[in-house]
Amino acid sequence: MSWLENSIMARRGVAGGRAGAEHYLSIADQGAFHYVYGPYASPVLSVKPGAVISVETQDAFEGAITSEQDMPSEKLNFPFLNPQNGPIFVEGAEKGDCLAVYIKSIVPRGPQPVGTTAVIPEFGGLVGTGTTAMLNKPLPERVKKMVVTPEGGVVWNDKITLPYEPFIGTIGTSPQIEAISSLQPDSHGGNMDVPDVAPGAIVYLPVNTTGGYLYLGDCHGTQGDGELCGVAIEIPSVTTIQVDLIKGMTIAWPRLETEDKLFTIGSARPMEDAARIAYRELTRWMVADYGFEEMDAYMLLTQAGRMRLGNMVDPKYSLAASILKKYLA
Amino acid sequence: MSWLENSIMARRGVAGGRAGAEHYLSIADQGAFHYVYGPYASPVLSVKPGAVISVETQDAFEGAITSEQDMPSEKLNFPFLNPQNGPIFVEGAEKGDCLAVYIKSIVPRGPQPVGTTAVIPEFGGLVGTGTTAMLNKPLPERVKKMVVTPEGGVVWNDKITLPYEPFIGTIGTSPQIEAISSLQPDSHGGNMDVPDVAPGAIVYLPVNTTGGYLYLGDCHGTQGDGELCGVAIEIPSVTTIQVDLIKGMTIAWPRLETEDKLFTIGSARPMEDAARIAYRELTRWMVADYGFEEMDAYMLLTQAGRMRLGNMVDPKYSLAASILKKYLA
Amino acid sequence: MSWLENSIMARRGVAGGRAGAEHYLSIADQGAFHYVYGPYASPVLSVKPGAVISVETQDAFEGAITSEQDMPSEKLNFPFLNPQNGPIFVEGAEKGDCLAVYIKSIVPRGPQPVGTTAVIPEFGGLVGTGTTAMLNKPLPERVKKMVVTPEGGVVWNDKITLPYEPFIGTIGTSPQIEAISSLQPDSHGGNMDVPDVAPGAIVYLPVNTTGGYLYLGDCHGTQGDGELCGVAIEIPSVTTIQVDLIKGMTIAWPRLETEDKLFTIGSARPMEDAARIAYRELTRWMVADYGFEEMDAYMLLTQAGRMRLGNMVDPKYSLAASILKKYLA
Amino acid sequence: MSWLENSIMARRGVAGGRAGAEHYLSIADQGAFHYVYGPYASPVLSVKPGAVISVETQDAFEGAITSEQDMPSEKLNFPFLNPQNGPIFVEGAEKGDCLAVYIKSIVPRGPQPVGTTAVIPEFGGLVGTGTTAMLNKPLPERVKKMVVTPEGGVVWNDKITLPYEPFIGTIGTSPQIEAISSLQPDSHGGNMDVPDVAPGAIVYLPVNTTGGYLYLGDCHGTQGDGELCGVAIEIPSVTTIQVDLIKGMTIAWPRLETEDKLFTIGSARPMEDAARIAYRELTRWMVADYGFEEMDAYMLLTQAGRMRLGNMVDPKYSLAASILKKYLA
Repeated sequence: MSWLENSIMARRGVAGGRAGAEHYLSIADQGAFHYVYGPYASPVLSVKPGAVISVETQDAFEGAITSEQDMPSEKLNFPFLNPQNGPIFVEGAEKGDCLAVYIKSIVPRGPQPVGTTAVIPEFGGLVGTGTTAMLNKPLPERVKKMVVTPEGGVVWNDKITLPYEPFIGTIGTSPQIEAISSLQPDSHGGNMDVPDVAPGAIVYLPVNTTGGYLYLGDCHGTQGDGELCGVAIEIPSVTTIQVDLIKGMTIAWPRLETEDKLFTIGSARPMEDAARIAYRELTRWMVADYGFEEMDAYMLLTQAGRMRLGNMVDPKYSLAASILKKYLA
Repeated sequence: MSWLENSIMARRGVAGGRAGAEHYLSIADQGAFHYVYGPYASPVLSVKPGAVISVETQDAFEGAITSEQDMPSEKLNFPFLNPQNGPIFVEGAEKGDCLAVYIKSIVPRGPQPVGTTAVIPEFGGLVGTGTTAMLNKPLPERVKKMVVTPEGGVVWNDKITLPYEPFIGTIGTSPQIEAISSLQPDSHGGNMDVPDVAPGAIVYLPVNTTGGYLYLGDCHGTQGDGELCGVAIEIPSVTTIQVDLIKGMTIAWPRLETEDKLFTIGSARPMEDAARIAYRELTRWMVADYGFEEMDAYMLLTQAGRMRLGNMVDPKYSLAASILKKYLA
Repeated sequence: MSWLENSIMARRGVAGGRAGAEHYLSIADQGAFHYVYGPYASPVLSVKPGAVISVETQDAFEGAITSEQDMPSEKLNFPFLNPQNGPIFVEGAEKGDCLAVYIKSIVPRGPQPVGTTAVIPEFGGLVGTGTTAMLNKPLPERVKKMVVTPEGGVVWNDKITLPYEPFIGTIGTSPQIEAISSLQPDSHGGNMDVPDVAPGAIVYLPVNTTGGYLYLGDCHGTQGDGELCGVAIEIPSVTTIQVDLIKGMTIAWPRLETEDKLFTIGSARPMEDAARIAYRELTRWMVADYGFEEMDAYMLLTQAGRMRLGNMVDPKYSLAASILKKYLA
Repeated sequence: MSWLENSIMARRGVAGGRAGAEHYLSIADQGAFHYVYGPYASPVLSVKPGAVISVETQDAFEGAITSEQDMPSEKLNFPFLNPQNGPIFVEGAEKGDCLAVYIKSIVPRGPQPVGTTAVIPEFGGLVGTGTTAMLNKPLPERVKKMVVTPEGGVVWNDKITLPYEPFIGTIGTSPQIEAISSLQPDSHGGNMDVPDVAPGAIVYLPVNTTGGYLYLGDCHGTQGDGELCGVAIEIPSVTTIQVDLIKGMTIAWPRLETEDKLFTIGSARPMEDAARIAYRELTRWMVADYGFEEMDAYMLLTQAGRMRLGNMVDPKYSLAASILKKYLA
């Protein structure tokens, strides 16, 4: 736990990074799920900084796909996709502040096989879509279900087992006045699909409205860079987070802290714009908080920056730029 | 008026394209303006199909820039930009229907010089922005005010006068569950900035929610292709429209009809995706309503299609594909 | 001819825009055609500024598709596509100069039906390609042949006849050291597919190497904006041009002059970058030659600029920005 | 060496992956360097499959920047940048074959400080460029020189030392008829800047012309993902490679093999197209050589694929998709 005690959350958070009251947000407590990130919903929970919240999340299909014979085009009802828990009201949060969300654990929930992936018509990274509009015929639908456990991993088939590397696919705050589809990432967070948003990491999210309105959902048992076909190993989960509040820390885009790295996440199209956003935010962060002259930060990132592709399938693509903390000391 | 009598609006509209009751929506009637296109606002007006509505619109800056000394960075308050009138509830409109909006006239409103353009930091087509994130220093701010009249045109300076070619920069319906910034165009319409959305044309807009929730604003005295610096000749106006309703005509993206052409409008990034959307929609329209085999439509548009660049500055770019009606007969 | 006498070519050309010696470059004279724009070929012709040259061009398929039963995948042999005449050596041309090519006429050549269009697998604006790589199955191949004459137009079918609006699809100079596929446009010109490169217009091309090395080919009987399926009305032709030389006029990208407009052409991906190049070049031209302050040019183009989409199918897309000359006086 | 004995090179190469004759290509032997990848140059060396070749490479500036006071805009002479050694003729190589280049070592060469990076006007990932054309003023020039040794790493400053992680920035074969700038990557390889093209890896390159015509240069002492400012730690080097030939293995884009992974590299703009190319090639490879059904490969890459960003600064961006070999067994 040592690095956490020296994290930005611990140093700047209202709760000092210390765990506070515990809450449990069950499916029943949640009631209706949300399909937009916006300020027009009523909070399901109000918490003080430091709160530890265990959340029962649905998978991205809200459990509608229970067998490999369930066709997505019949079972799914656009735009009611990617159901989100929340919003969670964080007491004291005002526009210009920042939420710190420490991800403690993600555990699959419900009967096995708990994992689902699928090929869905006109959706994915290597097919024509509603945006990259093509005349080619869509690929045939395809659903794959599999057992996913923390101990046993993701049992792809009888030859291949992938490691259990869970993360939160969709997490963010409410925009100030917009209500943005939970399928879309943007400066408020949302459907970023960055695998580093995983247990052990702290996500920093901009607060745009009183209470912040934290939403989350869409946990993945594992995922490759880019979430190529558009559907990771989707799992319902119990996800436990600790939420702190940093007053006056104004950030334009989501950030991430792990034991050894700092990340900034950009979401945009074309993909180079997402990369530009992420690297510019990281440059600015190094200048604002770590004493770098701008050109030095720019040149150092050229040699030591890393870029993770979150997804190349959403309405905006997400990429995460990072730098080792040891170069910032 | 002959072509109008044979327009899609006339042939398929609930009101048969005939003018009905007249309404006037003044600034006072409007009260608070809107900065998102969404279903969470209350209608300011409820009309029957055929209604003729004269709307007092604000300019994109809500009148905050009154002299060339007013700096946008001081006068503007993001995200409260591009104020929209409405929503107007159209009786009988249900998801899957289509609104037909015939634009009768756009007249500048208020004291001269009524026209405004500006160079705003980190906004525009030839500068780094929040999305195309750059480290270069922004351009200096710059405001230009000018007299705009229907008779005298747009008086750019003592040597150059541009023709008065007004159009509606931003018009659309509400998305089903999203509330999308009025700065952004998408499948619901919004900030498309297509100069053909002008008096004499009929815009067709998808209905996503009961009543349709029509919004409009952001009239321009004229504009070049792409709205290069991001700010056209912005004017407050009295804009008069006639609104009809077409039951069961389901369209995925906005369409436009003029005396001699049919248009489809796509909005996306990168720009080729907006062009793809527009041309695919037009291909599909030719197949669905004009008896073309898909490959024939595709090949004919290759030879006879036209593409208008609306804007290259918004969160999504808008382009309008078109074909002469005479090739569809 | 009055505007020509006041054209840039006439005012600055070595030959003063006056026609000089006449040349005829037949298929036999040409011998081997070229499939790259580069400095490694030997000139087929050397001319003095003012030369009027009639060129027998092949169509983009080098005549290999003679019936609607000829399948492109069997008849075409990549990369030997889009055959180019030339290079033509212009005496006195040195790096940093500019060629002015006045297009006098384009006449179809050979037995009817002389026009060809086609749907070719993995090529076109609404399909997955080698660059926009998809897993969807390609569209079926399709060839369409038609009669094309200057008087009778493009006889699409028994109901539709398109006007004969010929232009040069591919024209340019040699890069300095690169040899670039004739399928690709870039700063040297090449496969731009801009319909304004038509009889009556003057194209200005950068000279990158001694003699300029002018290539041309790929004439079209007509074409829509974007050349959507990738194949316009391809025709073999006799194309007559007059070539002048402007010493010391250094341009970064191709330009175009017509009676009433000036154009700059940009080629890049994504499409917005092609638009940015074109508008920046036009801005710079207005500053350099027409006395505009940069911000004034930028703001005026915002209101009065026009943008023509050449193609959205080549390895780089081409767009042409323009402004009416009357605003530059 | 065990994995090498089971590499594709060893299993399919004409030389069976065994080292053959040794060659040394000094600066003097090389004579004139090359700035395009093309078939128009004469080979500097002809080798048999299995040849081990030590090459004295220049840095990307051909040594023109020797102090931090050397301004790139004065010292560099476009397009004579990124000098390449070669071409090396590989005996027996014919179009449709594939070269296997095993990278044995990269050692810095010449007097310290041997490493150079720089901020160059209108070049880089976070600035306007000739392609992403902006009106903003360029960043000021900046040069940084540093000591680079295999043992001591990259001495960035007195606080930061980066590990020595050398790789070949630019390597490839000749296109069939094009001559492509050494600044640009494409299907023939070239300026890919993928850090995995490092000692211990085998690069597979398509052969497009008799002899293959292998070029290489542009070694980097280290580099971050994306080569953000456009200039990595540029070093002159002695680079030792072993070249084998695989008859009849036809690949569309460069591939890479390491002990535990297989990679495919795509280069294109916008960036998503480079990612699409890379992932489609990897999908196709899994189908062709590892018995996957296409949809299974697509879905598995969604969960287990990795994507490395090579550069986001060249005329085309390069990304490398990869999969662990253990999932292919």
